[in-house]
Amino acid sequence: MAEKIRAEKTYRPKAETPKGFRDYFGAEVTERKAMLDRIAEVYHRYGFDPLETSAVETVEALGKFLPDVDRPNEGVFAWQEASEGADADWLALRYDLTAPLARVAAQYRNDLPSPYRRYAMGPVWRNEKPGPGRFRQFYQCDADTVGSSSVAADAEICAMLSDALETVGIPRGDYVVKVNNRKVLNGILTSVTGGLERYEVASMTPEERKEYRALELAGLENDPAVDPIMRTLDKFDKVGIEGVRELLTYGRKDASGAFIDGVGLSSDMAQGYVNFLTAKGSSNESTLRRLREILAHSAIGLEGVDELEEMAKLLDCQGYGPDRIVIDPGVVRGLGYYTGPVYEAELTFEILDEKGRKRQFGSVAGGGRYDGLVKRFTGQDVPATGVSIGVDRLLAALRAKGRVTADTTGPVVVTVMDRERMADYMAMVGDLRQAGIRAEVYLGNPKNFGNQLKYADKRQSPVAVIQGANEAEKGTVILKDLILGAKIAEGASLEEWKSRPAQVEIPVASLVAEVRKMLAP
Amino acid sequence: MAEKIRAEKTYRPKAETPKGFRDYFGAEVTERKAMLDRIAEVYHRYGFDPLETSAVETVEALGKFLPDVDRPNEGVFAWQEASEGADADWLALRYDLTAPLARVAAQYRNDLPSPYRRYAMGPVWRNEKPGPGRFRQFYQCDADTVGSSSVAADAEICAMLSDALETVGIPRGDYVVKVNNRKVLNGILTSVTGGLERYEVASMTPEERKEYRALELAGLENDPAVDPIMRTLDKFDKVGIEGVRELLTYGRKDASGAFIDGVGLSSDMAQGYVNFLTAKGSSNESTLRRLREILAHSAIGLEGVDELEEMAKLLDCQGYGPDRIVIDPGVVRGLGYYTGPVYEAELTFEILDEKGRKRQFGSVAGGGRYDGLVKRFTGQDVPATGVSIGVDRLLAALRAKGRVTADTTGPVVVTVMDRERMADYMAMVGDLRQAGIRAEVYLGNPKNFGNQLKYADKRQSPVAVIQGANEAEKGTVILKDLILGAKIAEGASLEEWKSRPAQVEIPVASLVAEVRKMLAP
Repeated sequence: MAEKIRAEKTYRPKAETPKGFRDYFGAEVTERKAMLDRIAEVYHRYGFDPLETSAVETVEALGKFLPDVDRPNEGVFAWQEASEGADADWLALRYDLTAPLARVAAQYRNDLPSPYRRYAMGPVWRNEKPGPGRFRQFYQCDADTVGSSSVAADAEICAMLSDALETVGIPRGDYVVKVNNRKVLNGILTSVTGGLERYEVASMTPEERKEYRALELAGLENDPAVDPIMRTLDKFDKVGIEGVRELLTYGRKDASGAFIDGVGLSSDMAQGYVNFLTAKGSSNESTLRRLREILAHSAIGLEGVDELEEMAKLLDCQGYGPDRIVIDPGVVRGLGYYTGPVYEAELTFEILDEKGRKRQFGSVAGGGRYDGLVKRFTGQDVPATGVSIGVDRLLAALRAKGRVTADTTGPVVVTVMDRERMADYMAMVGDLRQAGIRAEVYLGNPKNFGNQLKYADKRQSPVAVIQGANEAEKGTVILKDLILGAKIAEGASLEEWKSRPAQVEIPVASLVAEVRKMLAP
Repeated sequence: MAEKIRAEKTYRPKAETPKGFRDYFGAEVTERKAMLDRIAEVYHRYGFDPLETSAVETVEALGKFLPDVDRPNEGVFAWQEASEGADADWLALRYDLTAPLARVAAQYRNDLPSPYRRYAMGPVWRNEKPGPGRFRQFYQCDADTVGSSSVAADAEICAMLSDALETVGIPRGDYVVKVNNRKVLNGILTSVTGGLERYEVASMTPEERKEYRALELAGLENDPAVDPIMRTLDKFDKVGIEGVRELLTYGRKDASGAFIDGVGLSSDMAQGYVNFLTAKGSSNESTLRRLREILAHSAIGLEGVDELEEMAKLLDCQGYGPDRIVIDPGVVRGLGYYTGPVYEAELTFEILDEKGRKRQFGSVAGGGRYDGLVKRFTGQDVPATGVSIGVDRLLAALRAKGRVTADTTGPVVVTVMDRERMADYMAMVGDLRQAGIRAEVYLGNPKNFGNQLKYADKRQSPVAVIQGANEAEKGTVILKDLILGAKIAEGASLEEWKSRPAQVEIPVASLVAEVRKMLAP
């Protein structure tokens, strides 16, 4: 008692996962691992090599977050090297897998094969305010091709993404990879906003086209109207086509009744965007035809359409038709970051949300082409294209579909009836393990046998092995079928109960064979 | 040119891995993963469940490093939460996998099965001065049983360690798991230093034994002679038995000629320790007999011997004889941390060190029993025992033995002779991948065909697929056997060259079959 009072006075740290972080137990670990292993097999088959960079980067190399303020850790977890005084480097945890790839592509540019296909899987960290369902450490799974400007590289990533989804257990028809192109969007922005004079693009010489393209890009970058338009188009998924039309013009009431101001475009202009977002036809050919009409006056837009057509052709020749990979101008999300093809994998089946309403599962992966990857380091543009799979979302989808494949069966539990005969129980568990059967001997205090069965239950054990003094004398053991036992408790039929007794007594010598029989499905 | 000069004036961050960190490429990643996957299979079979905690812990929960100084990051990478002012929590990267286990065992103590068997594999971080071969991020691979005071738990871990080593490719006979017991060492320290009166332990009542044991422990903790003795015994591996004898008494010259002061014990006392360190007999039985003689007057020492005997018995009944797991009082390393059985896996084969000298590979894993795991959090002693495998050392051993099993073959490379026919090349690579063959199409600039073959070489590609206009017209492709090509370059025999031409022309339709033939070993 005195001992206890003393203990209570001692300061005790809290045993808590830090805010915004979480722990993964048992099947949560193996299910994710099984999924990532399958994805890695596909990536490997496509010639992608794994890359595992350190979790820590210099803040300087990470970019975005420069050490010109006292604590440069907005958005990242950062700290200063302790040993070297005020000038010491700032280090930080990586916030994605692309920034480390940029550093690696620059650092090893003379040693890596070019093009360099690499995949990376691992945790990343974000220094955000934690909230429900928002974690500060989570997995990313990326594949990128660095050093190829060919749209064949983009097409390959789309095909690989399609294979990866099917390999982890999303059947064909339950997903679609949608492809769009940043250049098409740029073209539509200049065509519709009319920020530039309408050239007769089709009749230009190649030089004029090039110059015009540069004008278009410069115009876009300096046009303050572009950002709000992009953001509005990005809401297509959520508010639908009429919602977009309202938001592009005079504004709209949202679900809560609040009024959201519109961008202020004319109805005609808004119609131009609506035409674009809904340009998806019944086939890739008809989509491409409509886009060519809409973008007739934009050199960069037509360049984007050409790229889309080329990708569709390259995919088609490998058998990836629009049932798997489809051109869809409605894909706007994240376009700002990209310079060419963009793609997004959507799961098309419905699930019930937390309020019991049906909704589409939505996006589980996305990516595209970006050219500024190593420019910060080397000053050179290096073309790159890549995809990132949302690991947690895809795993949630697989769980929703009942497609999670990791073995969650607990171990056979050898119970301890007689502490003095631990060697016998260890021999049994040894035999089971040697035969490849997952098995444990109960290692807690064996006094209370009920606790041992409770333990077996908690472990989701399929079979308990029991040998008391009586059985030991006879050279037998009792096998208790805990799966059937649970079924009977839930009300199995009499036939079932008779045909497969929940408990059998067998000779010790046939332990492995009989357990195996009981474990057979 | 103006462009270039401007670029050179811009500030460019360095593309460098932070000091003390490293990047892992291709086979370095897959080889380690293959090894850890095999170990995980063994752990799974033994009923151990995976646990993946976050990389980040509160400094408070990590222990050791309390936030009572300005920068509590001695030894760890730590930073203060940004949002909450000066009182904000300090966070840190975990420095091992045991501290997070302690936190989890306390936090989830009402939900976890008890005993709780868990394994964990992942990186840990140490804020140390980087040096050659010393990294600040490295992998650990731990398995622990929490909540069992039975030596059966220790025996199980030793058996599992033995299985794990054999499963990853260390053959029986090339390793040994040595077992000792902290209580035996405590016993020898009190027996030999004579810090306590010599009771006639054998004739004590259980109560007297218990009291005497407490006296022994208290005596050890307060005895300033113990630390230098422990440290000296720990050098047995390096200086041998005569070295230990010298260091325990008057001192010794080391290899460089410098004189190392001795501890100052009498020759008799030193002989006591030498007897202990060399107590290993030709069998476990004879080792146990010798230990009983040496420790006849130490209650705690005899308790340790009893535990060793019990472990040997439990292992023996599962077939783990002293050829795999052996009692060895010479194992002293790391004992300070432990409270009961300790174990260490040593590889017994010789390798050549950096100076070309033969030496034993040495220890690759170690562990033991420790009871203070969750006490900091809950105030309660919870018995625990566990092992940590040195991932990098074990991998190095497997490499030294040529036992690394990951597939390092590069992809088949489909070259691009004619940029306009990319769709044909994509179709070929698609067929190969569908057939499960690792394959790539060359995605760089196809102009210089030599570059494509150099690329294939860098990728360690086994086969290059080539189709120029001629072949396309005929409906054929050329397969270039790059492995044989390399062999011929190294001087293959004429027969070899004839029997298996390094280049064949085949119909496109039989591409998959012919490539498969060429890849067959």
